[in-house]
Amino acid sequence: MIRVGIIGTGNLARHLFRGIGATSTARVVQVAGRDPAGLSYFENNVATTDLDTLTAQVDLYLLAVSDDAIPTVSTNVNLQGKLVAHCSGTVPLEALAAGTRRAVFYPLQTFSRERELSFRTIPIFIETESSEDLELLRSLAGLLSDTVMPLSSPKRREVHLAAVFANNFTNYLYGIAWEIAADAGIEPTLLLPLIRETAEKIKEIPPERAQTGPAKRGDHRTMDTHLTLLKKEHHRDIYRILSQAIYTAYAKKL
Amino acid sequence: MIRVGIIGTGNLARHLFRGIGATSTARVVQVAGRDPAGLSYFENNVATTDLDTLTAQVDLYLLAVSDDAIPTVSTNVNLQGKLVAHCSGTVPLEALAAGTRRAVFYPLQTFSRERELSFRTIPIFIETESSEDLELLRSLAGLLSDTVMPLSSPKRREVHLAAVFANNFTNYLYGIAWEIAADAGIEPTLLLPLIRETAEKIKEIPPERAQTGPAKRGDHRTMDTHLTLLKKEHHRDIYRILSQAIYTAYAKKL
Repeated sequence: MIRVGIIGTGNLARHLFRGIGATSTARVVQVAGRDPAGLSYFENNVATTDLDTLTAQVDLYLLAVSDDAIPTVSTNVNLQGKLVAHCSGTVPLEALAAGTRRAVFYPLQTFSRERELSFRTIPIFIETESSEDLELLRSLAGLLSDTVMPLSSPKRREVHLAAVFANNFTNYLYGIAWEIAADAGIEPTLLLPLIRETAEKIKEIPPERAQTGPAKRGDHRTMDTHLTLLKKEHHRDIYRILSQAIYTAYAKKL
Repeated sequence: MIRVGIIGTGNLARHLFRGIGATSTARVVQVAGRDPAGLSYFENNVATTDLDTLTAQVDLYLLAVSDDAIPTVSTNVNLQGKLVAHCSGTVPLEALAAGTRRAVFYPLQTFSRERELSFRTIPIFIETESSEDLELLRSLAGLLSDTVMPLSSPKRREVHLAAVFANNFTNYLYGIAWEIAADAGIEPTLLLPLIRETAEKIKEIPPERAQTGPAKRGDHRTMDTHLTLLKKEHHRDIYRILSQAIYTAYAKKL
Protein backbone atom coordinates (compact mmCIF):
# COMPACT_ATOMS: atom_id res chain seq x y z
CA MET A 1 0.00 0.00 0.00
CA ILE A 2 1.37 3.39 -1.01
CA ARG A 3 0.39 5.98 1.57
CA VAL A 4 -0.07 9.44 0.11
CA GLY A 5 -0.49 12.86 1.70
CA ILE A 6 -2.03 15.61 -0.40
CA ILE A 7 -1.15 19.22 0.28
CA GLY A 8 -3.70 21.54 -1.31
CA THR A 9 -7.46 21.50 -1.63
CA GLY A 10 -8.20 22.80 -5.16
CA ASN A 11 -9.38 21.10 -8.33
CA LEU A 12 -6.29 19.01 -8.83
CA ALA A 13 -6.17 17.93 -5.18
CA ARG A 14 -9.77 16.74 -5.47
CA HIS A 15 -9.14 14.83 -8.68
CA LEU A 16 -6.01 13.23 -7.20
CA PHE A 17 -7.90 12.31 -4.06
CA ARG A 18 -10.65 10.59 -6.03
CA GLY A 19 -8.21 8.99 -8.49
CA ILE A 20 -5.99 7.55 -5.76
CA GLY A 21 -9.05 6.52 -3.75
CA ALA A 22 -10.15 4.39 -6.68
CA THR A 23 -6.94 2.34 -6.69
CA SER A 24 -6.58 -0.76 -4.58
CA THR A 25 -2.95 -0.35 -3.56
CA ALA A 26 -2.59 3.35 -2.83
CA ARG A 27 -4.55 5.57 -0.54
CA VAL A 28 -4.64 9.14 0.65
CA VAL A 29 -4.15 9.18 4.40
CA GLN A 30 -4.13 12.92 4.96
CA VAL A 31 -5.11 16.11 3.16
CA ALA A 32 -3.51 19.32 4.35
CA GLY A 33 -4.45 22.87 3.45
CA ARG A 34 -4.56 26.34 4.81
CA ASP A 35 -8.17 26.90 3.88
CA PRO A 36 -10.79 25.30 6.19
CA ALA A 37 -13.46 25.70 3.49
CA GLY A 38 -11.27 23.81 1.04
CA LEU A 39 -10.60 21.06 3.58
CA SER A 40 -14.30 20.60 4.25
CA TYR A 41 -14.64 18.86 0.88
CA PHE A 42 -12.42 16.06 2.16
CA GLU A 43 -13.13 15.85 5.87
CA ASN A 44 -15.75 13.14 5.85
CA ASN A 45 -13.48 10.81 3.91
CA VAL A 46 -9.95 11.33 5.18
CA ALA A 47 -7.97 12.99 7.98
CA THR A 48 -7.54 16.69 7.25
CA THR A 49 -5.15 19.16 8.81
CA ASP A 50 -3.79 22.66 8.47
CA LEU A 51 -0.29 23.09 7.13
CA ASP A 52 1.33 23.33 10.56
CA THR A 53 0.46 19.90 11.87
CA LEU A 54 1.31 17.39 9.19
CA THR A 55 1.68 14.24 11.20
CA ALA A 56 0.60 11.30 9.09
CA GLN A 57 3.10 8.64 8.14
CA VAL A 58 3.14 8.76 4.35
CA ASP A 59 5.35 7.46 1.57
CA LEU A 60 5.06 10.70 -0.35
CA TYR A 61 3.35 14.03 -0.47
CA LEU A 62 1.70 15.39 -3.58
CA LEU A 63 1.92 19.17 -3.50
CA ALA A 64 -1.15 20.28 -5.43
CA VAL A 65 -0.88 24.02 -4.89
CA SER A 66 -0.51 26.95 -7.29
CA ASP A 67 2.83 27.39 -9.05
CA ASP A 68 3.70 30.46 -7.00
CA ALA A 69 3.06 28.69 -3.73
CA ILE A 70 5.36 25.71 -4.41
CA PRO A 71 8.59 27.21 -3.03
CA THR A 72 7.03 28.79 0.05
CA VAL A 73 4.76 25.92 1.02
CA SER A 74 7.52 23.35 0.56
CA THR A 75 9.79 25.50 2.74
CA ASN A 76 7.34 26.51 5.44
CA VAL A 77 5.74 23.13 5.95
CA ASN A 78 7.86 20.58 7.77
CA LEU A 79 8.69 18.20 4.91
CA GLN A 80 12.38 17.58 5.61
CA GLY A 81 13.49 14.18 4.37
CA LYS A 82 10.09 13.48 2.82
CA LEU A 83 9.43 12.64 -0.81
CA VAL A 84 7.52 15.70 -2.07
CA ALA A 85 6.23 15.89 -5.63
CA HIS A 86 4.74 19.08 -6.99
CA CYS A 87 2.28 18.87 -9.88
CA SER A 88 3.21 21.83 -12.05
CA GLY A 89 4.13 21.83 -15.71
CA THR A 90 6.39 24.86 -15.54
CA VAL A 91 7.98 24.93 -12.11
CA PRO A 92 11.38 23.21 -12.03
CA LEU A 93 12.06 20.43 -9.56
CA GLU A 94 14.62 22.69 -7.87
CA ALA A 95 11.92 25.11 -6.75
CA LEU A 96 11.03 22.66 -3.99
CA ALA A 97 12.67 23.23 -0.61
CA ALA A 98 16.18 21.88 -0.15
CA GLY A 99 16.23 18.99 2.30
CA THR A 100 13.09 17.44 0.87
CA ARG A 101 13.35 14.54 -1.60
CA ARG A 102 12.27 16.69 -4.51
CA ALA A 103 10.04 15.30 -7.23
CA VAL A 104 7.47 16.19 -9.86
CA PHE A 105 4.20 14.46 -10.71
CA TYR A 106 2.68 16.30 -13.70
CA PRO A 107 -0.56 15.00 -15.19
CA LEU A 108 -1.03 16.51 -18.65
CA GLN A 109 -4.68 17.45 -18.41
CA THR A 110 -7.07 20.31 -17.66
CA PHE A 111 -8.96 19.73 -14.43
CA SER A 112 -12.30 21.33 -13.63
CA ARG A 113 -14.35 21.04 -10.52
CA GLU A 114 -17.44 20.13 -12.55
CA ARG A 115 -15.95 17.33 -14.68
CA GLU A 116 -15.23 13.81 -13.57
CA LEU A 117 -12.12 12.47 -15.26
CA SER A 118 -10.40 9.14 -15.45
CA PHE A 119 -6.64 9.34 -15.00
CA ARG A 120 -6.26 6.15 -17.04
CA THR A 121 -5.55 7.91 -20.37
CA ILE A 122 -3.83 10.99 -18.93
CA PRO A 123 -0.06 11.02 -19.44
CA ILE A 124 1.78 11.57 -16.16
CA PHE A 125 5.31 12.96 -16.37
CA ILE A 126 7.49 12.27 -13.36
CA GLU A 127 10.86 13.48 -12.14
CA THR A 128 12.86 12.74 -9.00
CA GLU A 129 16.36 13.16 -7.58
CA SER A 130 16.99 9.48 -6.83
CA SER A 131 16.18 6.28 -8.65
CA GLU A 132 14.46 4.84 -5.54
CA ASP A 133 12.09 7.77 -5.46
CA LEU A 134 11.54 7.43 -9.19
CA GLU A 135 10.37 3.87 -8.71
CA LEU A 136 8.00 4.84 -5.94
CA LEU A 137 6.56 7.70 -7.96
CA ARG A 138 6.32 5.49 -11.02
CA SER A 139 4.39 2.91 -9.01
CA LEU A 140 1.89 5.47 -7.81
CA ALA A 141 1.49 7.07 -11.25
CA GLY A 142 1.17 3.65 -12.84
CA LEU A 143 -1.77 2.83 -10.58
CA LEU A 144 -3.58 5.84 -12.00
CA SER A 145 -2.47 5.99 -15.62
CA ASP A 146 -1.37 3.76 -18.48
CA THR A 147 1.11 6.41 -19.63
CA VAL A 148 3.86 7.31 -17.17
CA MET A 149 7.10 8.87 -18.37
CA PRO A 150 10.14 10.25 -16.59
CA LEU A 151 10.83 13.73 -17.93
CA SER A 152 13.32 16.44 -17.02
CA SER A 153 12.18 19.89 -15.90
CA PRO A 154 13.24 21.61 -19.15
CA LYS A 155 11.38 19.06 -21.29
CA ARG A 156 8.34 19.28 -19.04
CA ARG A 157 8.31 23.03 -19.58
CA GLU A 158 8.11 22.40 -23.33
CA VAL A 159 5.22 20.00 -22.83
CA HIS A 160 3.46 22.64 -20.78
CA LEU A 161 4.05 25.21 -23.51
CA ALA A 162 2.55 22.84 -26.07
CA ALA A 163 -0.41 22.40 -23.71
CA VAL A 164 -0.94 26.16 -23.59
CA PHE A 165 -1.51 26.11 -27.35
CA ALA A 166 -3.52 22.89 -27.31
CA ASN A 167 -5.73 23.85 -24.39
CA ASN A 168 -5.62 27.49 -23.21
CA PHE A 169 -5.44 29.13 -26.62
CA THR A 170 -7.77 26.64 -28.25
CA ASN A 171 -10.36 27.23 -25.54
CA TYR A 172 -10.04 30.96 -26.09
CA LEU A 173 -10.77 30.48 -29.81
CA TYR A 174 -13.80 28.40 -28.85
CA GLY A 175 -14.88 31.42 -26.82
CA ILE A 176 -14.60 33.74 -29.84
CA ALA A 177 -16.57 31.26 -31.95
CA TRP A 178 -19.18 31.10 -29.19
CA GLU A 179 -19.47 34.88 -29.17
CA ILE A 180 -19.78 35.19 -32.97
CA ALA A 181 -22.51 32.55 -33.04
CA ALA A 182 -24.40 34.07 -30.13
CA ASP A 183 -24.19 37.55 -31.68
CA ALA A 184 -25.71 36.13 -34.87
CA GLY A 185 -28.55 34.58 -32.87
CA ILE A 186 -27.26 31.06 -33.40
CA GLU A 187 -27.09 28.69 -30.46
CA PRO A 188 -23.31 28.28 -29.89
CA THR A 189 -23.63 24.64 -28.92
CA LEU A 190 -24.41 23.92 -32.59
CA LEU A 191 -20.64 24.27 -33.00
CA LEU A 192 -19.97 21.30 -30.73
CA PRO A 193 -20.02 18.53 -33.36
CA LEU A 194 -17.53 20.53 -35.45
CA ILE A 195 -15.32 21.18 -32.44
CA ARG A 196 -15.45 17.55 -31.46
CA GLU A 197 -14.59 16.31 -34.94
CA THR A 198 -11.72 18.82 -35.18
CA ALA A 199 -10.26 17.33 -32.01
CA GLU A 200 -10.95 13.71 -32.97
CA LYS A 201 -9.68 13.96 -36.52
CA ILE A 202 -6.07 14.53 -35.48
CA LYS A 203 -5.97 11.06 -33.97
CA GLU A 204 -5.85 9.82 -37.54
CA ILE A 205 -4.69 12.80 -39.55
CA PRO A 206 -1.92 15.00 -38.10
CA PRO A 207 -2.95 18.68 -37.79
CA GLU A 208 -0.68 19.77 -40.61
CA ARG A 209 -2.59 17.54 -43.05
CA ALA A 210 -5.97 18.20 -41.46
CA GLN A 211 -5.79 21.94 -42.10
CA THR A 212 -8.60 23.41 -44.19
CA GLY A 213 -10.22 26.81 -44.64
CA PRO A 214 -9.92 30.10 -46.51
CA ALA A 215 -6.40 30.91 -45.27
CA LYS A 216 -5.03 27.60 -46.44
CA ARG A 217 -6.73 28.00 -49.82
CA GLY A 218 -5.50 31.57 -50.12
CA ASP A 219 -9.12 32.67 -50.46
CA HIS A 220 -8.60 36.38 -49.86
CA ARG A 221 -12.15 37.34 -50.70
CA THR A 222 -13.56 35.24 -47.87
CA MET A 223 -10.86 36.43 -45.48
CA ASP A 224 -11.62 40.07 -46.33
CA THR A 225 -15.32 39.49 -45.77
CA HIS A 226 -14.61 37.85 -42.42
CA LEU A 227 -12.56 40.83 -41.34
CA THR A 228 -15.46 43.16 -42.11
CA LEU A 229 -17.80 40.92 -40.09
CA LEU A 230 -15.65 40.86 -36.97
CA LYS A 231 -16.71 43.68 -34.71
CA LYS A 232 -13.90 43.59 -32.16
CA GLU A 233 -10.45 44.88 -32.95
CA HIS A 234 -8.67 42.06 -31.08
CA HIS A 235 -10.76 39.45 -32.90
CA ARG A 236 -9.64 41.00 -36.20
CA ASP A 237 -6.02 41.00 -34.99
CA ILE A 238 -6.24 37.32 -34.06
CA TYR A 239 -7.96 36.49 -37.34
CA ARG A 240 -5.26 38.29 -39.31
CA ILE A 241 -2.26 36.80 -37.54
CA LEU A 242 -3.56 33.22 -37.66
CA SER A 243 -4.69 33.50 -41.28
CA GLN A 244 -1.36 34.97 -42.28
CA ALA A 245 0.52 32.17 -40.51
CA ILE A 246 -1.63 29.48 -42.15
CA TYR A 247 -1.44 31.12 -45.54
CA THR A 248 2.35 31.40 -45.32
CA ALA A 249 2.76 27.83 -44.11
CA TYR A 250 0.73 26.34 -46.95
CA ALA A 251 1.77 28.75 -49.69
CA LYS A 252 5.31 27.57 -49.00
CA LYS A 253 4.23 24.03 -49.60
CA LEU A 254 2.58 24.68 -52.95
CA MET B 1 -38.44 8.73 -52.49
CA ILE B 2 -36.37 11.92 -52.87
CA ARG B 3 -34.17 11.64 -55.95
CA VAL B 4 -30.92 13.55 -55.63
CA GLY B 5 -28.25 14.49 -58.14
CA ILE B 6 -24.82 15.38 -56.85
CA ILE B 7 -22.58 17.73 -58.80
CA GLY B 8 -19.00 17.45 -57.63
CA THR B 9 -16.76 14.56 -56.69
CA GLY B 10 -14.67 15.78 -53.73
CA ASN B 11 -14.79 14.98 -50.02
CA LEU B 12 -18.16 16.51 -49.39
CA ALA B 13 -19.71 14.87 -52.46
CA ARG B 14 -18.49 11.50 -51.22
CA HIS B 15 -19.81 12.04 -47.71
CA LEU B 16 -23.17 13.19 -49.08
CA PHE B 17 -23.33 10.21 -51.38
CA ARG B 18 -22.73 7.79 -48.54
CA GLY B 19 -25.01 9.69 -46.14
CA ILE B 20 -27.93 9.79 -48.57
CA GLY B 21 -27.29 6.20 -49.60
CA ALA B 22 -27.82 5.16 -45.98
CA THR B 23 -31.32 6.63 -45.84
CA SER B 24 -34.36 4.61 -46.88
CA THR B 25 -36.34 7.37 -48.56
CA ALA B 26 -33.75 9.34 -50.51
CA ARG B 27 -31.25 8.21 -53.04
CA VAL B 28 -28.56 9.60 -55.27
CA VAL B 29 -29.47 8.81 -58.86
CA GLN B 30 -26.61 10.58 -60.61
CA VAL B 31 -23.21 12.05 -59.80
CA ALA B 32 -21.81 14.61 -62.22
CA GLY B 33 -18.30 16.00 -62.36
CA ARG B 34 -15.72 17.27 -64.77
CA ASP B 35 -12.98 15.02 -63.45
CA PRO B 36 -13.09 11.37 -64.65
CA ALA B 37 -10.75 10.34 -61.83
CA GLY B 38 -13.13 11.89 -59.29
CA LEU B 39 -16.12 10.15 -60.89
CA SER B 40 -14.42 6.78 -60.73
CA TYR B 41 -15.03 6.69 -56.96
CA PHE B 42 -18.77 6.58 -57.64
CA GLU B 43 -19.14 4.72 -60.90
CA ASN B 44 -19.74 1.23 -59.56
CA ASN B 45 -22.59 2.44 -57.39
CA VAL B 46 -24.46 5.09 -59.32
CA ALA B 47 -24.80 6.62 -62.79
CA THR B 48 -22.02 9.11 -63.40
CA THR B 49 -21.74 11.77 -66.05
CA ASP B 50 -19.73 14.77 -67.09
CA LEU B 51 -21.20 18.22 -66.60
CA ASP B 52 -22.57 18.51 -70.15
CA THR B 53 -24.98 15.61 -70.11
CA LEU B 54 -27.02 15.83 -66.94
CA THR B 55 -30.08 13.85 -67.82
CA ALA B 56 -31.36 12.17 -64.73
CA GLN B 57 -34.77 13.07 -63.42
CA VAL B 58 -34.08 14.37 -59.92
CA ASP B 59 -35.94 16.33 -57.27
CA LEU B 60 -32.88 18.41 -56.48
CA TYR B 61 -29.22 18.83 -57.18
CA LEU B 62 -26.63 19.23 -54.45
CA LEU B 63 -23.80 21.35 -55.77
CA ALA B 64 -20.76 20.13 -53.82
CA VAL B 65 -18.07 22.13 -55.58
CA SER B 66 -15.56 24.70 -54.36
CA ASP B 67 -16.88 28.14 -53.44
CA ASP B 68 -15.33 29.76 -56.49
CA ALA B 69 -16.91 27.28 -58.86
CA ILE B 70 -20.50 27.78 -57.64
CA PRO B 71 -21.45 30.67 -59.96
CA THR B 72 -19.82 29.25 -63.09
CA VAL B 73 -20.90 25.65 -62.66
CA SER B 74 -24.49 26.63 -61.87
CA THR B 75 -24.50 28.85 -64.96
CA ASN B 76 -22.72 26.55 -67.41
CA VAL B 77 -24.54 23.37 -66.51
CA ASN B 78 -28.11 23.13 -67.71
CA LEU B 79 -30.01 23.48 -64.45
CA GLN B 80 -32.78 25.86 -65.47
CA GLY B 81 -35.92 25.35 -63.43
CA LYS B 82 -34.19 22.80 -61.17
CA LEU B 83 -33.84 23.02 -57.42
CA VAL B 84 -30.09 23.52 -56.91
CA ALA B 85 -28.56 23.74 -53.44
CA HIS B 86 -24.93 24.69 -52.97
CA CYS B 87 -23.15 23.55 -49.81
CA SER B 88 -20.98 26.52 -48.90
CA GLY B 89 -20.87 28.43 -45.64
CA THR B 90 -19.88 31.74 -47.18
CA VAL B 91 -21.33 31.92 -50.67
CA PRO B 92 -24.72 33.71 -50.76
CA LEU B 93 -27.75 32.00 -52.25
CA GLU B 94 -27.76 34.65 -54.99
CA ALA B 95 -24.45 33.41 -56.36
CA LEU B 96 -26.33 30.54 -57.99
CA ALA B 97 -27.44 31.03 -61.60
CA ALA B 98 -30.63 32.95 -62.17
CA GLY B 99 -33.38 30.68 -63.50
CA THR B 100 -32.51 27.86 -61.15
CA ARG B 101 -34.52 27.36 -57.95
CA ARG B 102 -31.68 28.57 -55.79
CA ALA B 103 -30.99 26.97 -52.42
CA VAL B 104 -28.33 26.25 -49.83
CA PHE B 105 -27.62 23.05 -47.93
CA TYR B 106 -24.77 23.76 -45.50
CA PRO B 107 -23.63 21.00 -43.15
CA LEU B 108 -21.56 22.53 -40.34
CA GLN B 109 -18.71 20.06 -40.25
CA THR B 110 -15.18 19.42 -41.48
CA PHE B 111 -15.07 16.57 -43.98
CA SER B 112 -11.97 14.53 -44.69
CA ARG B 113 -11.53 11.75 -47.13
CA GLU B 114 -10.09 9.50 -44.45
CA ARG B 115 -12.80 9.89 -41.81
CA GLU B 116 -16.20 8.27 -41.81
CA LEU B 117 -18.80 10.58 -40.31
CA SER B 118 -22.42 10.27 -39.34
CA PHE B 119 -24.55 13.20 -40.45
CA ARG B 120 -26.95 12.50 -37.58
CA THR B 121 -25.39 15.05 -35.19
CA ILE B 122 -24.24 17.55 -37.81
CA PRO B 123 -26.35 20.72 -37.97
CA ILE B 124 -27.56 21.40 -41.51
CA PHE B 125 -28.50 24.98 -42.35
CA ILE B 126 -30.85 25.36 -45.29
CA GLU B 127 -32.08 28.28 -47.38
CA THR B 128 -34.39 28.44 -50.41
CA GLU B 129 -36.37 30.96 -52.43
CA SER B 130 -39.77 29.31 -52.04
CA SER B 131 -41.52 27.59 -49.18
CA GLU B 132 -42.17 24.48 -51.31
CA ASP B 133 -38.46 24.10 -51.95
CA LEU B 134 -37.77 24.72 -48.27
CA GLU B 135 -39.97 21.78 -47.34
CA LEU B 136 -38.29 19.50 -49.85
CA LEU B 137 -34.83 20.50 -48.66
CA ARG B 138 -35.92 20.15 -45.06
CA SER B 139 -37.17 16.64 -45.77
CA LEU B 140 -33.88 15.60 -47.30
CA ALA B 141 -31.78 17.23 -44.56
CA GLY B 142 -34.04 15.70 -41.92
CA LEU B 143 -33.31 12.22 -43.27
CA LEU B 144 -29.63 12.84 -42.62
CA SER B 145 -29.54 14.95 -39.48
CA ASP B 146 -31.45 15.59 -36.29
CA THR B 147 -30.63 19.30 -36.49
CA VAL B 148 -31.96 21.14 -39.52
CA MET B 149 -32.44 24.90 -39.45
CA PRO B 150 -33.44 27.45 -42.09
CA LEU B 151 -30.87 30.25 -42.07
CA SER B 152 -30.36 33.33 -44.22
CA SER B 153 -27.16 33.85 -46.20
CA PRO B 154 -25.87 36.66 -43.92
CA LYS B 155 -26.42 34.53 -40.80
CA ARG B 156 -24.84 31.52 -42.46
CA ARG B 157 -21.77 33.61 -43.17
CA GLU B 158 -21.51 34.34 -39.45
CA VAL B 159 -21.77 30.65 -38.64
CA HIS B 160 -19.00 29.97 -41.11
CA LEU B 161 -16.85 32.65 -39.52
CA ALA B 162 -17.40 31.06 -36.11
CA ALA B 163 -16.40 27.74 -37.67
CA VAL B 164 -13.14 29.22 -38.92
CA PHE B 165 -12.21 29.97 -35.31
CA ALA B 166 -13.58 26.69 -33.96
CA ASN B 167 -12.00 24.50 -36.62
CA ASN B 168 -9.39 26.10 -38.92
CA PHE B 169 -7.63 28.20 -36.31
CA THR B 170 -7.95 25.59 -33.60
CA ASN B 171 -6.42 22.98 -35.87
CA TYR B 172 -3.55 25.33 -36.62
CA LEU B 173 -2.89 25.72 -32.89
CA TYR B 174 -2.89 21.94 -32.59
CA GLY B 175 -0.21 22.00 -35.27
CA ILE B 176 1.95 24.40 -33.27
CA ALA B 177 1.51 22.24 -30.15
CA TRP B 178 2.47 19.20 -32.24
CA GLU B 179 5.61 20.93 -33.43
CA ILE B 180 6.67 22.08 -29.95
CA ALA B 181 6.21 18.59 -28.56
CA ALA B 182 8.04 16.93 -31.44
CA ASP B 183 10.93 19.42 -31.16
CA ALA B 184 11.25 18.51 -27.48
CA GLY B 185 11.37 14.82 -28.34
CA ILE B 186 7.90 14.19 -26.93
CA GLU B 187 5.43 12.12 -28.93
CA PRO B 188 2.78 14.71 -29.96
CA THR B 189 -0.08 12.23 -29.63
CA LEU B 190 0.44 12.44 -25.86
CA LEU B 191 -1.44 15.75 -26.21
CA LEU B 192 -4.56 13.99 -27.49
CA PRO B 193 -6.27 13.36 -24.13
CA LEU B 194 -5.82 17.05 -23.26
CA ILE B 195 -7.10 18.16 -26.65
CA ARG B 196 -10.06 15.86 -26.35
CA GLU B 197 -10.96 17.01 -22.85
CA THR B 198 -10.62 20.67 -23.93
CA ALA B 199 -13.20 20.02 -26.65
CA GLU B 200 -15.51 17.90 -24.46
CA LYS B 201 -15.45 20.18 -21.46
CA ILE B 202 -17.30 22.99 -23.22
CA LYS B 203 -20.36 20.79 -23.51
CA GLU B 204 -20.81 21.38 -19.81
CA ILE B 205 -18.80 24.51 -19.11
CA PRO B 206 -18.92 27.37 -21.63
CA PRO B 207 -15.47 28.37 -22.94
CA GLU B 208 -15.47 31.64 -21.05
CA ARG B 209 -15.71 29.78 -17.74
CA ALA B 210 -13.45 26.92 -18.86
CA GLN B 211 -10.49 29.22 -19.53
CA THR B 212 -7.32 28.46 -17.56
CA GLY B 213 -3.62 29.08 -17.97
CA PRO B 214 -0.87 31.62 -17.38
CA ALA B 215 -2.51 34.43 -19.39
CA LYS B 216 -5.76 34.16 -17.45
CA ARG B 217 -3.86 34.14 -14.15
CA GLY B 218 -1.70 37.08 -15.24
CA ASP B 219 1.35 34.87 -14.65
CA HIS B 220 3.87 37.03 -16.50
CA ARG B 221 6.85 34.99 -15.41
CA THR B 222 5.56 31.87 -17.13
CA MET B 223 4.52 33.84 -20.21
CA ASP B 224 7.98 35.42 -20.47
CA THR B 225 9.60 31.99 -20.17
CA HIS B 226 7.33 30.62 -22.89
CA LEU B 227 8.30 33.44 -25.21
CA THR B 228 11.97 32.60 -24.75
CA LEU B 229 11.26 28.94 -25.52
CA LEU B 230 9.41 29.60 -28.78
CA LYS B 231 11.89 29.48 -31.61
CA LYS B 232 9.74 30.85 -34.42
CA GLU B 233 8.84 34.50 -34.67
CA HIS B 234 5.27 33.82 -35.81
CA HIS B 235 4.73 31.40 -32.94
CA ARG B 236 5.84 34.15 -30.55
CA ASP B 237 3.51 36.63 -32.27
CA ILE B 238 0.58 34.25 -31.91
CA TYR B 239 1.49 33.51 -28.30
CA ARG B 240 1.65 37.22 -27.51
CA ILE B 241 -1.58 38.23 -29.18
CA LEU B 242 -3.63 35.39 -27.70
CA SER B 243 -2.13 35.81 -24.23
CA GLN B 244 -2.77 39.55 -24.33
CA ALA B 245 -6.39 39.00 -25.39
CA ILE B 246 -6.97 36.43 -22.62
CA TYR B 247 -5.21 38.55 -20.03
CA THR B 248 -7.26 41.63 -20.96
CA ALA B 249 -10.53 39.68 -21.00
CA TYR B 250 -10.03 38.24 -17.55
CA ALA B 251 -8.29 41.20 -15.93
CA LYS B 252 -11.42 43.19 -16.77
CA LYS B 253 -13.50 40.68 -14.88
CA LEU B 254 -11.47 40.82 -11.68
